[in-house]
Amino acid sequence: MFESFWRTVGERSTIVIPGWKTMSYFSDVRSVCWFLETEFADEVRRLHRLVGNAKVDDGRSIVVGTGSTQLFQAALYALSPLDGPEPVNVVSAVPYYSSYLAVTDFLKSRLYKWAGDACGFPGDDSPYIEIVTSPNNPDGFTRKAIVNGSCGKTIHDLAYYWPQYTAITEEADHDIMLFTVSKSTGHAGTRIGWALVKDEEVAKRMTKFIEINTIGVSKDSQLRAARILKVISDGHEWPVTDGTERFFEYGRRMMTDRWERLREVVRSTSRFSLPQFTPAFCKFAGETTETHPAFAWLKCEMEGVEDCEGYLKSHKILTRSGKHFGMDIKHVRVSMLDRDEIFDLFLERLANL
Amino acid sequence: MFESFWRTVGERSTIVIPGWKTMSYFSDVRSVCWFLETEFADEVRRLHRLVGNAKVDDGRSIVVGTGSTQLFQAALYALSPLDGPEPVNVVSAVPYYSSYLAVTDFLKSRLYKWAGDACGFPGDDSPYIEIVTSPNNPDGFTRKAIVNGSCGKTIHDLAYYWPQYTAITEEADHDIMLFTVSKSTGHAGTRIGWALVKDEEVAKRMTKFIEINTIGVSKDSQLRAARILKVISDGHEWPVTDGTERFFEYGRRMMTDRWERLREVVRSTSRFSLPQFTPAFCKFAGETTETHPAFAWLKCEMEGVEDCEGYLKSHKILTRSGKHFGMDIKHVRVSMLDRDEIFDLFLERLANL
Repeated sequence: MFESFWRTVGERSTIVIPGWKTMSYFSDVRSVCWFLETEFADEVRRLHRLVGNAKVDDGRSIVVGTGSTQLFQAALYALSPLDGPEPVNVVSAVPYYSSYLAVTDFLKSRLYKWAGDACGFPGDDSPYIEIVTSPNNPDGFTRKAIVNGSCGKTIHDLAYYWPQYTAITEEADHDIMLFTVSKSTGHAGTRIGWALVKDEEVAKRMTKFIEINTIGVSKDSQLRAARILKVISDGHEWPVTDGTERFFEYGRRMMTDRWERLREVVRSTSRFSLPQFTPAFCKFAGETTETHPAFAWLKCEMEGVEDCEGYLKSHKILTRSGKHFGMDIKHVRVSMLDRDEIFDLFLERLANL
Repeated sequence: MFESFWRTVGERSTIVIPGWKTMSYFSDVRSVCWFLETEFADEVRRLHRLVGNAKVDDGRSIVVGTGSTQLFQAALYALSPLDGPEPVNVVSAVPYYSSYLAVTDFLKSRLYKWAGDACGFPGDDSPYIEIVTSPNNPDGFTRKAIVNGSCGKTIHDLAYYWPQYTAITEEADHDIMLFTVSKSTGHAGTRIGWALVKDEEVAKRMTKFIEINTIGVSKDSQLRAARILKVISDGHEWPVTDGTERFFEYGRRMMTDRWERLREVVRSTSRFSLPQFTPAFCKFAGETTETHPAFAWLKCEMEGVEDCEGYLKSHKILTRSGKHFGMDIKHVRVSMLDRDEIFDLFLERLANL
């Protein structure tokens, strides 16, 4: 969806890498994260300062990852005791991002294991890790940690905490915060995520995970991500002279348009319902803004239809069933970030049901 | 070490990526490895055909990874039964690449576990995975699988099976063969490796591992690696018009020079010994060539010195002790691929001991 923006930007977002550049494994051996490109780290800090969505100026470390998925695993590794008697329980409130389950359990680690819904998880004195996704994937709601144990750790996945999706109400200040270019700028193929980490020892252990898992992170992609973030910050910080739109304004306009059209279709069919969000004052935009999540969490309201995914599939609409997110099958998740023609087709088919 | 070559190549090896390119997660959804860039796959096949070091034209699949380290884990995952009663034993003959141990065991998986030296490992009917590194890291020798069990699988790590290091005596034809640009072209920071996989089901499971671990592999780095491999193949296939050297000739000349100088110093001090290799006919070069490994496996021959790494460190020479490779501490591994000034300093300090 963001591709059309990047086409308008032109050469400013183009990256040129000569054959002899960044050949080494190392970027900055004095940094906690020795494979983190300084240029990328600088642009990450700059963008957070501009948007005001996360604290970066209090000595916290940046760890770069091959997407935030790798950083999620790095965080699990960093937060799990290496010699615990049992794997640490990993929980997240339903509906939760379906990949957390797969990623936590696919290697059958004895360090950590998926324990499902955070609601009802006992807040006793045994160790656990709670994943807090805010805005949440799949349903778009703002979230806080809910388990109240004395030995818990949290991982905050803030992939969608950007002004095109939701109001920036405060500068997030959690122990581990995960971000990714795939959701902030649309560059999924670049596979670059970053973590802001308060405790240096945790940042070191996350770095160790990535060192063992992939001996660092593509320098080419870090340089490209740095350039992309720079273009966004430049656009918002410098006066616009050539008529191009600013990235987050473009993003918000696109998301607003898509959500308005989707809500219109949903209203007209009365067969489905969508979550309702309360507008909030966005400190970045300087005005009250609506929430427009990257996914629509659609619920079938038709009598006789239990399996919403199956029903929609029979009408050539591909969605992901609520069961993957720990919920009932009346719910499905629909991407709001697809290309224009695919999104238009989705609306058309939904309207014609 | 290869940086100076890439500086002479100039713009032909430069990659330009506009901001709107390769933004998607997907490369080719019809491919077994859905995140593999076609351009990269084509250049991988072309280079293997040119060099003749591995079979690619019999329908085997290419799986791309974030370096060969990720592919090694993908192969372990693909070859381990998901519901076995015990983790599968992973073995490799000493001296083995030290990272295999760390990578196999760091998550304490119940799918596989490190079982050490392949020599003496019982060849019974229980499942195991043998890693065969050839030429071997750290000692440079050509290797074959040695465990003779009925339920064994092999992973061939052929990272160093290139003409700058050793004679190309045959087209390797194993079930899983791992390669990486970091050793073939010198682009470690690009984090791109590839696996040639005979069994499509195994290739699919390896792809699944990378999908869960990092949701694919940087497209930017795949495009860059494709360009780098293309420049190498072009250089060898096209007539040289501008006087630049061909990559593998350059590489062999550099390695020959460094090994001759190292052997000279070792001879003159008589405090150390190095492995001796038998020259062999290289089908790629069309002549008999010497073996010049990427690492020197140095042995202290001094009486009274047990810990070779400690002894050299006290003389400001950084090496890696044999104990990390499952061997005695009289051995150390020294990189032969460092920058010129570091390699020169190493020789100078070694000569002055």
